[in-house]
Amino acid sequence: MTEVLTWSLAELASAFHLDVRGEPSVRVSGLHTLQSAGPEHLSFLANRKYLEQLEKTRAAAVIVHPSALDRYQGPALVTDQPYLAYARISRMIEAARRPIVEAQIHPQAVVDATALLEEGVQIGPMAVVGAYAVLRRGVVVGAGAVIGDRVVLGEQSHIFARAVIYPDCILGCRVRVHAGAVIGSDGFGFAPGPDGWERIAQLGRVVIGDDCDIGANTTIDRGALGDTVLGRGVIVDNQVQIAHNVSIGDGTAIAACVGISGSTQIGQRCVLAGGVGLVGHIHIADHVQLTGMTMVTKSIEQPGSYSSGSICEPTAQWKKTAVRVKQLERLVERVARLERRIQTDHLS
Amino acid sequence: MTEVLTWSLAELASAFHLDVRGEPSVRVSGLHTLQSAGPEHLSFLANRKYLEQLEKTRAAAVIVHPSALDRYQGPALVTDQPYLAYARISRMIEAARRPIVEAQIHPQAVVDATALLEEGVQIGPMAVVGAYAVLRRGVVVGAGAVIGDRVVLGEQSHIFARAVIYPDCILGCRVRVHAGAVIGSDGFGFAPGPDGWERIAQLGRVVIGDDCDIGANTTIDRGALGDTVLGRGVIVDNQVQIAHNVSIGDGTAIAACVGISGSTQIGQRCVLAGGVGLVGHIHIADHVQLTGMTMVTKSIEQPGSYSSGSICEPTAQWKKTAVRVKQLERLVERVARLERRIQTDHLS
Amino acid sequence: MTEVLTWSLAELASAFHLDVRGEPSVRVSGLHTLQSAGPEHLSFLANRKYLEQLEKTRAAAVIVHPSALDRYQGPALVTDQPYLAYARISRMIEAARRPIVEAQIHPQAVVDATALLEEGVQIGPMAVVGAYAVLRRGVVVGAGAVIGDRVVLGEQSHIFARAVIYPDCILGCRVRVHAGAVIGSDGFGFAPGPDGWERIAQLGRVVIGDDCDIGANTTIDRGALGDTVLGRGVIVDNQVQIAHNVSIGDGTAIAACVGISGSTQIGQRCVLAGGVGLVGHIHIADHVQLTGMTMVTKSIEQPGSYSSGSICEPTAQWKKTAVRVKQLERLVERVARLERRIQTDHLS
Repeated sequence: MTEVLTWSLAELASAFHLDVRGEPSVRVSGLHTLQSAGPEHLSFLANRKYLEQLEKTRAAAVIVHPSALDRYQGPALVTDQPYLAYARISRMIEAARRPIVEAQIHPQAVVDATALLEEGVQIGPMAVVGAYAVLRRGVVVGAGAVIGDRVVLGEQSHIFARAVIYPDCILGCRVRVHAGAVIGSDGFGFAPGPDGWERIAQLGRVVIGDDCDIGANTTIDRGALGDTVLGRGVIVDNQVQIAHNVSIGDGTAIAACVGISGSTQIGQRCVLAGGVGLVGHIHIADHVQLTGMTMVTKSIEQPGSYSSGSICEPTAQWKKTAVRVKQLERLVERVARLERRIQTDHLS
Repeated sequence: MTEVLTWSLAELASAFHLDVRGEPSVRVSGLHTLQSAGPEHLSFLANRKYLEQLEKTRAAAVIVHPSALDRYQGPALVTDQPYLAYARISRMIEAARRPIVEAQIHPQAVVDATALLEEGVQIGPMAVVGAYAVLRRGVVVGAGAVIGDRVVLGEQSHIFARAVIYPDCILGCRVRVHAGAVIGSDGFGFAPGPDGWERIAQLGRVVIGDDCDIGANTTIDRGALGDTVLGRGVIVDNQVQIAHNVSIGDGTAIAACVGISGSTQIGQRCVLAGGVGLVGHIHIADHVQLTGMTMVTKSIEQPGSYSSGSICEPTAQWKKTAVRVKQLERLVERVARLERRIQTDHLS
Repeated sequence: MTEVLTWSLAELASAFHLDVRGEPSVRVSGLHTLQSAGPEHLSFLANRKYLEQLEKTRAAAVIVHPSALDRYQGPALVTDQPYLAYARISRMIEAARRPIVEAQIHPQAVVDATALLEEGVQIGPMAVVGAYAVLRRGVVVGAGAVIGDRVVLGEQSHIFARAVIYPDCILGCRVRVHAGAVIGSDGFGFAPGPDGWERIAQLGRVVIGDDCDIGANTTIDRGALGDTVLGRGVIVDNQVQIAHNVSIGDGTAIAACVGISGSTQIGQRCVLAGGVGLVGHIHIADHVQLTGMTMVTKSIEQPGSYSSGSICEPTAQWKKTAVRVKQLERLVERVARLERRIQTDHLS
């Protein structure tokens, strides 16, 4: 249980194409922040605002940009992209810590006899795999997850505990779906009928490209007709809602608690910060950034950063401000009247 | 797996009380949008802004309003309510595609010996049904769903995979609860005590009327005393939070990511768009519409549409606007001073 | 099923250190609001705005503050803290109603052979407990819950149906985690790489103090490095998102639909109302209150109440207001011009 894994700087430099500054035989045992690292740990500097912490760190070694070397005398792994090197080493450490599990179907999982399981598939206890589902090489299905009929999971995809994939959805390779996420639930489609709402069957699917990451308790609805589509390398945080027939371009990042209404199209390499809301049937261009809690009611056709919302104030002041905002129309009229008056006075 | 189901226009017209224009023997095999339909598909026009697409569609036939017939020469199913006809035909197609499953209790479900299961009940693998639960005719419980002790599920209700119904909750007939939804969790009730928060037991239930639809990962808390109540035909999208002792009137529609605080009462046939938030202990009249992300801090006693929030702008501009909003009180004072000055000048 | 539990006022007074006014042998059978209580029920008055209801209540007895006794003639349990007495009696009633279940591991649960289960642990059907997990005395794991490898659950903790605790997380004593909550999912950490986002392994844990309460479908991400930490007695409602490396001080209350971005630190005894959003890497002082849907983009270093957002109006008016807000910069310029004019006129 308590074996400590260590790596030498030489090993890390070779594996991740980094340069060593100092003694290559120095060994490190884990990743920590500059502040929290102990004398056996590796750390990194990815943002120059922490340069002061670099000078004081107790870390055994640090991943740094060449430009920071003059501020730090200790052993270092040097690279133009220290943050990326940190990301890659973090994944290596994660993989090393993970117990080696024999690929297997847990005896208390329920896998339909018609499902196709390729080599190396691993299915956890209490998981359910439906009829004609296809699980490609190396797929991992966590405890209690539910994989619907005819679902396709691409190679090396990982469905975590208790996620649900509804029937007919298609996931690419290396897609990760975190616990509690629901992919392919019914879109919110109802027609007004004589006795109330009449449900519109949601006949489409969810189709997710390679290398997407879907956060915990996020929901992605299936299309009404056509599909809901996520491109390649889309990353989605927790508690996000993606409605039916939305499409999201390659490489777009969506932070937690975002809600995207039906049929909205989002371009490539956008960044939606937490709590953003978009109405339906609009189009967001490539390379758009939306700051936290922005409300988007119209299409955005130009790349760039957009925002809405009001700034937090002490509640007593805010109450006054909020009333003033409601009275703005009146204020504008008062100013217009003054302008007319002044104009008249001048003319007279 | 790939059998194609088709229907003739004559069959559809007869089943759904529609008129045929053109050849009644034309066969269609599925529903698609005007743009995506191929020559074997049925499509529909429900909004005149797509009239141009109607003229260009490749669909085999189209559901249309009589007023659109002059814009389209092909075979048609004609009705005053094309959207409703589309909804009904979509459900027929969904039902036709669904595999016929023998009503059964999966051998790897756990059903308490005291639970009452009426005819035609179907229980998926890994589902759990508690003591004294009552599942009326035709109820479907999905894989991994958990039905608490003494829960009552009305006829034809469908609890999807991994939804949880806490003990004592009552659901009407034909209620659909999507994956991951939680009905009857504890309301957020705590009293300040000498050593911190003391929990208030939530002794009420959730009671849901007939024909309600509850979205994926939505949460509805049980009442503290009394019950949390949804009327008949209430439709609720994904990721919605309904707090303890809320009541919601018949036919109200609640889009995704809405949060409703405790004891708030919402009338009949309201529409709450996505991301709306309501404080607790207020009353919303019948026929109120709230646009997306509206914050409601007071009761609304008149029907109509209400909104709040600010419009999305480029971030650089928004930063200026947001500061100006905070300074509004000062601006109002400046205008008042000008008015006094002008007044004085005039008088002098 | 229908046995009615009753208590005499004398019993309740003795158990909860209350005074009796009137006949101590009066028996009550449950808790109800002043309005809904019948002649066999106990009720309470915790807010003087309901004094009128006190005068009309049909309850058998009422928990009241001494100052309310002149408005009510019936039997009473008298205390300086009626709301706290209500909380405690509610928990007693809840406990009395709960069936006595023999501590047991359900035969259809999967518990790893290396997990340590102390005395009185109860594990529901379809639950999964991972390797080297430690479940202290009296822990309850609900149906379908998933407890990861090496997780520690403190004494008397209660994990409800279908919650998921990822590996390595540590929960204190008497922690309650409601259905569908996910503790320890990956933080949203990615570095931009040459071919798109590269995942940063999340190597930290979630550590939750004693007496915390976590709502249904809430998500708490594990730290990237270091841990995500909740102090003692933190109460968290449903649908809340707590990102990686957040820390939350003792006794803070977080209502539904709140989103807290990464590395943000929240002080002790704060109250965050529903729908609040906080950006990452900021600090909130102790004793801060945030009203519903407030957007916090900067640290708050002074205790007190803070707000943002605009007030709900009829949509037609709101549209005008929202445009006026966007034009505020221009209005400020107009006022400045007027001021200069007036100034000039005066000087001339």
